[in-house]
Amino acid sequence: MTVPLDLDANATEPLRPAARAALLAALEGGGNPSSIHGGGRAARRVIEAARRGVATRFGVAAGEVVFTSGGTEANALAIHGLGAGRRILAGATEHPAVLAAAPGAEILPVLPDGTLDLAALAASLAAALSAGRPALVCVMAANNETGVLHPLAEIGALCRAHAAMLHVDAVQSAGRMAPELAAWGAASVALSGHKLGGAPGAGALILAPGLHLPALIAGGGQERGRRGGTEPLPAVAALGGALEEAYDSARIMALRDAIEAGLRALDPRIVIAGAAAPRLPNTTLAVLPGVPAETQVIALDLAGVRVSAGAACSSGKVAASPVLQAMGFGADSGSGIRISLPWNAPEDAPMRFLAAYAAMLGRVRRA
Amino acid sequence: MTVPLDLDANATEPLRPAARAALLAALEGGGNPSSIHGGGRAARRVIEAARRGVATRFGVAAGEVVFTSGGTEANALAIHGLGAGRRILAGATEHPAVLAAAPGAEILPVLPDGTLDLAALAASLAAALSAGRPALVCVMAANNETGVLHPLAEIGALCRAHAAMLHVDAVQSAGRMAPELAAWGAASVALSGHKLGGAPGAGALILAPGLHLPALIAGGGQERGRRGGTEPLPAVAALGGALEEAYDSARIMALRDAIEAGLRALDPRIVIAGAAAPRLPNTTLAVLPGVPAETQVIALDLAGVRVSAGAACSSGKVAASPVLQAMGFGADSGSGIRISLPWNAPEDAPMRFLAAYAAMLGRVRRA
Repeated sequence: MTVPLDLDANATEPLRPAARAALLAALEGGGNPSSIHGGGRAARRVIEAARRGVATRFGVAAGEVVFTSGGTEANALAIHGLGAGRRILAGATEHPAVLAAAPGAEILPVLPDGTLDLAALAASLAAALSAGRPALVCVMAANNETGVLHPLAEIGALCRAHAAMLHVDAVQSAGRMAPELAAWGAASVALSGHKLGGAPGAGALILAPGLHLPALIAGGGQERGRRGGTEPLPAVAALGGALEEAYDSARIMALRDAIEAGLRALDPRIVIAGAAAPRLPNTTLAVLPGVPAETQVIALDLAGVRVSAGAACSSGKVAASPVLQAMGFGADSGSGIRISLPWNAPEDAPMRFLAAYAAMLGRVRRA
Repeated sequence: MTVPLDLDANATEPLRPAARAALLAALEGGGNPSSIHGGGRAARRVIEAARRGVATRFGVAAGEVVFTSGGTEANALAIHGLGAGRRILAGATEHPAVLAAAPGAEILPVLPDGTLDLAALAASLAAALSAGRPALVCVMAANNETGVLHPLAEIGALCRAHAAMLHVDAVQSAGRMAPELAAWGAASVALSGHKLGGAPGAGALILAPGLHLPALIAGGGQERGRRGGTEPLPAVAALGGALEEAYDSARIMALRDAIEAGLRALDPRIVIAGAAAPRLPNTTLAVLPGVPAETQVIALDLAGVRVSAGAACSSGKVAASPVLQAMGFGADSGSGIRISLPWNAPEDAPMRFLAAYAAMLGRVRRA
């Protein structure tokens, strides 16, 4: 039996070798990082080495890195901690984790290419400021379904001009792009370990220098009082390990481009969502009008190719993509599949994917 | 060099072999449990098998088990979700994670033996009820520093008689005692994976049948909307694996009793806190009046014996134990060390510990 082709890296990146090694070492070491004896101090060293690794990679000081249980908690911590007293503005294509953490948020539209509507943002920022309630703006660096990159430098400048804070959900971009935290001028940036080749169970919130943040989960005073609970040592070690490995963006983008060229050649009705915008190197959201996404995903799965119907976040639920709806895809919003290449995608990934897709397309046309 | 003797299991239990095996298998399998393709379904099976394991062990239905990032989050989720509109009552010796999650709680005293003062509880419950604000009572099954077991059946009956809900922090007892959830009549029970021989990064909240609980961390709808975020697959698998292994309570208690008999023989001034109350089989809090706990812990660590000064929850902080203070130890509250035997404690643990302790005692007396 052939090993399935994993093209669902935006759901979870495969574990990177350095992450596996770091995790296994931490597992054997054991220990509670808060214990003051030798076993505790050894565990503490593992945590602090991972913290320095994250800090170095993102160009911040170690004290500005707060470890959490993952990206969802990192986003929730930022919005809970920074949103109090502020009007919260969130992009229409934000991840459900962000929207759920800010149920009363004002939703900002995106343009047809998937990028945030800067004119609408400027108007909302001005309205919030003149209402005496400056904003917390929540925008993701890269969209999880389309890979579209928002213009964060411009967004950050607009925020600064309107006394607003910017929180960036960098869960999908963190391991795949050079981080530009300074250019964004963000108050906080959320990361997820397993989305960049670590293990599920750890994430991080990176804070601007000197920013005070009350805890969402309090407890025993860990993480300088910003996140209580014994740190998830193995997953934190894996997060640090994953960041030590390079990401070959050019190789992944070439594979992605081959997939997109092949799709366009197979059927001119296929639309690549957000193709006109800057995007992550590894992500394609391909819309096949008239064919439900779930039908496509299941057909490809049976052919040994693993993709997703938009986000993989609520078990079994496949509905129209809110991201495609926000981009104006209307009735076709339930017909997009996400192809997201993992860091270790094989060179024959485009060929294998396109063969399975072509076979699926043939059956769909006959039906 | 001799391997250090780990007597700090209440900070973290060593990983159990079945937990290690389950974690490694989950790590190799990978996958996001919310993905609908084969890789996601395989990950989902791992999560649901662990959930059934927890449910079976605690005598509840699988749907009543909510996985979290750990015990701290499980406690915070329960208090956040169940405490709204209720007066929160918490025992004076509760874990910092519980007290931090309920900053406005009314604190209930404990008796000198460390068990909750039931007369005070009854009075507070009656006052809350007559004020039209029934209580949420937070009491731990076993204290993390002394091992003292609270009379939960009586506490549960008092709660029922006063329309109060009971939340039990069972982090220290979960792997070490037969659970008696039904007898307690609790609305919720919190567990931690690494405290029962799993890995850090996963815990669980067990809910009474049919109880509605709003999320503390929302997100993509995982855990039936009660806890968002991709599940920490490896640590959840480890939690399930750890619960498959038996805990030899009689063996651990015999070692503990040997340690306590030896301590009493060494110096009659040593007090075992809570010795008059029912306790966990593995825990001894030994108070040596006049000698700071930190001095004792460091001396024992240098001799290759790892114990703690009360709880290990805020890095490096060693202060007077609030647990001993609540039990009336006064000025001696900073002189207690916690000796907590792990599941795999060697048979010579009492001999090795007592030799190191005796040497420490000798130096302290000369000084």
